[in-house]
Amino acid sequence: MPEESKVGMSDSLFSPRSVAVIGASGHPEKVGYALLFNIKKTFTGRIYPVNPAGEDILGLPSFKSVSDIKGDVDLAVVAVPASAVAVVIDECGRKGIKAVIVISAGFKEMGPQGLTAEEEVLMVAKKYGIRVLGPNCLGVIDTSTPINATFASVAARRGNVAFMSQSGALCSAILDWAGKEGLGFSKFVSLGNKADLNENDFLEMFEADKNTRVVLAYLEGLIDGGAFMKNARSLIKKKPLIVLKAGRTESGMKAAASHTGALAGADAAYEAAFRQSGVLRADTEEELFAWSKAFSMQPMPKGGKVAVVTNAGGPGILATDALETAGLSLASFSAETINRLQKNLPPAANFHNPVDVLGDAAPERYRFALDTVLKDEGVDAVIVILTPQMMTKVEETAKQVSEAASKSKKTVIASFMGGALIAPGETYLREHQIPNYEFPSTAAKSLMAMVKYDMLRRREPGKPAPACQNKDKAEKIISACRKRGDVVMGPEAFDVLSLYGIETPKMKLAQTAAEAKKMADSIGGPVVMKIVSPEIIHKSDVGGVAVNVSLDRVEDTFDRIVLNARNYLPSAQVQGVLVQEMIQEGKEVIVGVSRDPHVGPLVMFGLGGTYVEVLKDVSFRIAPFSESDARDMVDEIRGSRILKGVRGEPPSDIDALVDVLTKISRLASDFPQVLELDVNPVKVFPAGGRGCVAVDVRVILAQGG
Amino acid sequence: MPEESKVGMSDSLFSPRSVAVIGASGHPEKVGYALLFNIKKTFTGRIYPVNPAGEDILGLPSFKSVSDIKGDVDLAVVAVPASAVAVVIDECGRKGIKAVIVISAGFKEMGPQGLTAEEEVLMVAKKYGIRVLGPNCLGVIDTSTPINATFASVAARRGNVAFMSQSGALCSAILDWAGKEGLGFSKFVSLGNKADLNENDFLEMFEADKNTRVVLAYLEGLIDGGAFMKNARSLIKKKPLIVLKAGRTESGMKAAASHTGALAGADAAYEAAFRQSGVLRADTEEELFAWSKAFSMQPMPKGGKVAVVTNAGGPGILATDALETAGLSLASFSAETINRLQKNLPPAANFHNPVDVLGDAAPERYRFALDTVLKDEGVDAVIVILTPQMMTKVEETAKQVSEAASKSKKTVIASFMGGALIAPGETYLREHQIPNYEFPSTAAKSLMAMVKYDMLRRREPGKPAPACQNKDKAEKIISACRKRGDVVMGPEAFDVLSLYGIETPKMKLAQTAAEAKKMADSIGGPVVMKIVSPEIIHKSDVGGVAVNVSLDRVEDTFDRIVLNARNYLPSAQVQGVLVQEMIQEGKEVIVGVSRDPHVGPLVMFGLGGTYVEVLKDVSFRIAPFSESDARDMVDEIRGSRILKGVRGEPPSDIDALVDVLTKISRLASDFPQVLELDVNPVKVFPAGGRGCVAVDVRVILAQGG
Repeated sequence: MPEESKVGMSDSLFSPRSVAVIGASGHPEKVGYALLFNIKKTFTGRIYPVNPAGEDILGLPSFKSVSDIKGDVDLAVVAVPASAVAVVIDECGRKGIKAVIVISAGFKEMGPQGLTAEEEVLMVAKKYGIRVLGPNCLGVIDTSTPINATFASVAARRGNVAFMSQSGALCSAILDWAGKEGLGFSKFVSLGNKADLNENDFLEMFEADKNTRVVLAYLEGLIDGGAFMKNARSLIKKKPLIVLKAGRTESGMKAAASHTGALAGADAAYEAAFRQSGVLRADTEEELFAWSKAFSMQPMPKGGKVAVVTNAGGPGILATDALETAGLSLASFSAETINRLQKNLPPAANFHNPVDVLGDAAPERYRFALDTVLKDEGVDAVIVILTPQMMTKVEETAKQVSEAASKSKKTVIASFMGGALIAPGETYLREHQIPNYEFPSTAAKSLMAMVKYDMLRRREPGKPAPACQNKDKAEKIISACRKRGDVVMGPEAFDVLSLYGIETPKMKLAQTAAEAKKMADSIGGPVVMKIVSPEIIHKSDVGGVAVNVSLDRVEDTFDRIVLNARNYLPSAQVQGVLVQEMIQEGKEVIVGVSRDPHVGPLVMFGLGGTYVEVLKDVSFRIAPFSESDARDMVDEIRGSRILKGVRGEPPSDIDALVDVLTKISRLASDFPQVLELDVNPVKVFPAGGRGCVAVDVRVILAQGG
Repeated sequence: MPEESKVGMSDSLFSPRSVAVIGASGHPEKVGYALLFNIKKTFTGRIYPVNPAGEDILGLPSFKSVSDIKGDVDLAVVAVPASAVAVVIDECGRKGIKAVIVISAGFKEMGPQGLTAEEEVLMVAKKYGIRVLGPNCLGVIDTSTPINATFASVAARRGNVAFMSQSGALCSAILDWAGKEGLGFSKFVSLGNKADLNENDFLEMFEADKNTRVVLAYLEGLIDGGAFMKNARSLIKKKPLIVLKAGRTESGMKAAASHTGALAGADAAYEAAFRQSGVLRADTEEELFAWSKAFSMQPMPKGGKVAVVTNAGGPGILATDALETAGLSLASFSAETINRLQKNLPPAANFHNPVDVLGDAAPERYRFALDTVLKDEGVDAVIVILTPQMMTKVEETAKQVSEAASKSKKTVIASFMGGALIAPGETYLREHQIPNYEFPSTAAKSLMAMVKYDMLRRREPGKPAPACQNKDKAEKIISACRKRGDVVMGPEAFDVLSLYGIETPKMKLAQTAAEAKKMADSIGGPVVMKIVSPEIIHKSDVGGVAVNVSLDRVEDTFDRIVLNARNYLPSAQVQGVLVQEMIQEGKEVIVGVSRDPHVGPLVMFGLGGTYVEVLKDVSFRIAPFSESDARDMVDEIRGSRILKGVRGEPPSDIDALVDVLTKISRLASDFPQVLELDVNPVKVFPAGGRGCVAVDVRVILAQGG
């Protein structure tokens, strides 16, 4: 849909001038009551309760139907039984309402019958151009309008976090949790069944929302991986996007015939899509919340060099461990900083990082140390640790910390450790936008999320692999195979690779031993020979492959291979024997393609040989992707150093490998009918040599066509 | 020390009949006041304040010196300036006091001068047979005596957790945190500088303590790795031991000349010691605390099959993810369970695991579901998840959960998610020994810690490698090398391996080309030839090694190798050329030895070749170790499947490899003078064949001897 209507949509949903509550109820235990109650409590525009009885509710005059309402209605919130929703939407359509939130449950989540009902609702909505949120959701909150159009029993505090959730129940837990933690929301959306409006729509709206500084999403799946990646990429240039994706272990991909399919678990496609588009993926609810506090409350750090100020040695060591584990580093202080600390702190203090201000540290000593390290140019962020000791003035220290932080543009986060003794400090910090963590390790990980986001937003994504000039020719080859009913492509698969600019070994199909000999002569040197027959898939197992065949053995080998094939399956239609240049040099890698039905075509990369299978040392990206993505894929595997040259070996031609990866990504996105593809092995030559050669390829095609 | 005196020690420290507080003060801001205040508040035995002024303090008559006290004194707690401590200890000795806690700081932690003072204190204590806790500590608490002999401002709740900490500040944070979380302690020990009593003494005391169900330790280092492992092994048969070891990134090991040394980071020895002795190692403070709650409050699960009961789908999926990530599995319910759930829950509920009792679940519905799954024989533990929804009665649900749990012997843990709305439920759970976690992922990880401990305590550790009959002979060889001043052992290293029962290639040292030929003939087949000279370490680099030498080339090769050596270093003393059987078959692995000054000799295992270096896919154990430890080492590396036979290869002889590993572990523990040792490669033959052959070995000796 065009950009303008999306903005209009956002206004109707989040900042309507008037709202109809259809299914409003006077009974406090009903959803229709809680909804109206929350809207009335927060919203200053016109509110129209709609209810068949037509009685006053919560002091508001109510209507028997939306059509009875005189004025314009921007938004309708629907909480009637599922069976009545379609009719209500039709009435909304006739009234000219363009945005509807369907709170009612009893749709897709209930099985096939519910799905039919949901489709009917959607059909009616489409007829009138109505955009629908839900069904089966908690509603939305916008704290700047303000409006709370949910039936949640906790209110959202005003703030800068936009949140969307595919679980309504999680919404209520999160609102409750956020109240405790002092986290404020700009917008809060319960996505429900995502029949119409989905995560991709809200990514656009949250990106445009000036009240939103950080975006959180709880998702159980993506509607459209490509759209998600596009919107996420755009959003993260402006603000961080933290996603908690549930259902990691769900078997999203079918059992697969290829290496790639087998190595790509259910989660690989989601992981790749998030990584590629710059999403910060939280592994647990805890990370989602911990990180959001830091982003919401503190400025971004300029880098990953962290100072620690603590009143105890042990927690300082724990923080150091946590920082290094998280991938951050302890800042090295300037001579000036060390000097100033030394002059002004007691002699038993530690003047180097982590700064130990000692157990008897008064608030002023904390303040001095914090001010001093904040001034050091080599410090990007500070973690302030406090343990409650005999002399510790917790609340006053919290005050000094927040004052020091407010005077600096650097990131300051706290870990006041304890329970009742530190509670007044926790409260003070929370109310003054200093994120506090129960444990230094959580503080360190949250800081790392910020540093990581800073790298992600600066990352130049690069352009996806360019279009292939020979796409049409490749398509003809693939179509011909599918028309013949081939599931596994024959030697034509090499032609497709060649058309996409990927080098393959010199090869020819021989019908006779003499032809084979002639071809081998023209190739020169030893050759590889393989039987070609659509009925014989596992060629090696039946003696259909011979490697390192010297020129004088080619004719014998031809006869033997054909005989083996005949013996194995007398009815097999033998098209001939493929005579191929034998590639001896180079390092073996594997490049593969599989598909996730929701996320898209997935390209895999790994080293060849036994290790790829045993160690599962592989990386994934969604196709098509850019050169820089391909380079990341290579760097990401644990064994990547092997390609860079170890033990005096020359470095492999990684530029050529990156080129093959991007070209395969183009191929994967050009042909959805290619279900799976393994190029295994690709031989990568030393840099400055022949580049890469795709030595073998296996393509599985979708049936029909 | 003998067992009896340890028990006596434990009594004096934790359940004295009388306590002297030396340095007791009437000034509330002083440590000596807080100490006396805490003791007076908790202790019903006799209390003797000691203070030079000799005035009454807190209503207790005080003494100018311990010698002025008439009655017996079991325990002295000392909080006088560091410089006065030795004199005070001497007085204690003369008074016949056998246990002293030195609270005073100003010792080893202050540098060399403090260390001297500490050594003096220790010397005085030893003279009288006094055992000392500290110095520089917070003190001890025993909640059953009861006595709080610390200057902490929070009291410990009575309970079953014994805790020891090398950081005093962490103690105060933990006491404060435990109050909030409802965690109770049996014993609480601040270890301070560990001048005398250390973690090993307390492991013994905690093991014997019937009030203790779970042991926690915060450690920054081990005094004696061997003693720790022995005591930990014994303790964990009775109760879990959770250790948080700080200083992971500390460089505990020097830069090393061997593969093993380079691959063993600073933390490898600690990790190995903990793993081997059945310690549950917490990576963060958060894990330490989360796990301790579960162990302290709930019975042990019989296995890892977990049921989830939730009032919301999303958190149920999150819990499923968390369980599988943690290594647990969702229980499969019996037909009877499913049937009962189906009959009694609303139709929209989920009757399979995770059980969704729906958002409107009343406490009774939770109770029914929980009772039902607890009865299922396929369920070992249950996680109950609650999100605060419109109809949710939080506190009453908590009550039903704790009642159901108390009627079952299975493990029940909770994750009530939210803030203020769920607070009454949290409080109820805490007070009724149901551990509650803010997030399902933390609940799952804590449950996994219990399941893991259950495996650890059942594990048969097996006997360490038996003594070697030829130890004396090996010792003579090593001594001879050291007397000659060799740092790197020559071919004698092979003899040492042979004496320890490890097969080496057939080999002989040849002084002439003719001798070399004769030896090669007797070996038969191709040979490996290597220059032997103490001055030439990197033999390959100078052309001092030839492999795959056929019998007709042996004499030429001899001359060439010797010439190369002479050209490289004319002054080199050439002892001859080693003619070795060439081992072509078998898979390459590496076995190495390095040493950690505190923990002990460390044996490393990994696959050979480039991968071992690039992927750091290695495992470690402290020597000497048992066959079952050796088997764990082999299983632990990611690439272990390669030894078990992949792609149709025969399985390698893992029994023989295990034998080599245990023998090397015996060698490593027999000879501290062997600083580092690499057997690289060891060739492992297919099972049922020649076993293992140590193809090359490099031994670095300690200088002097």
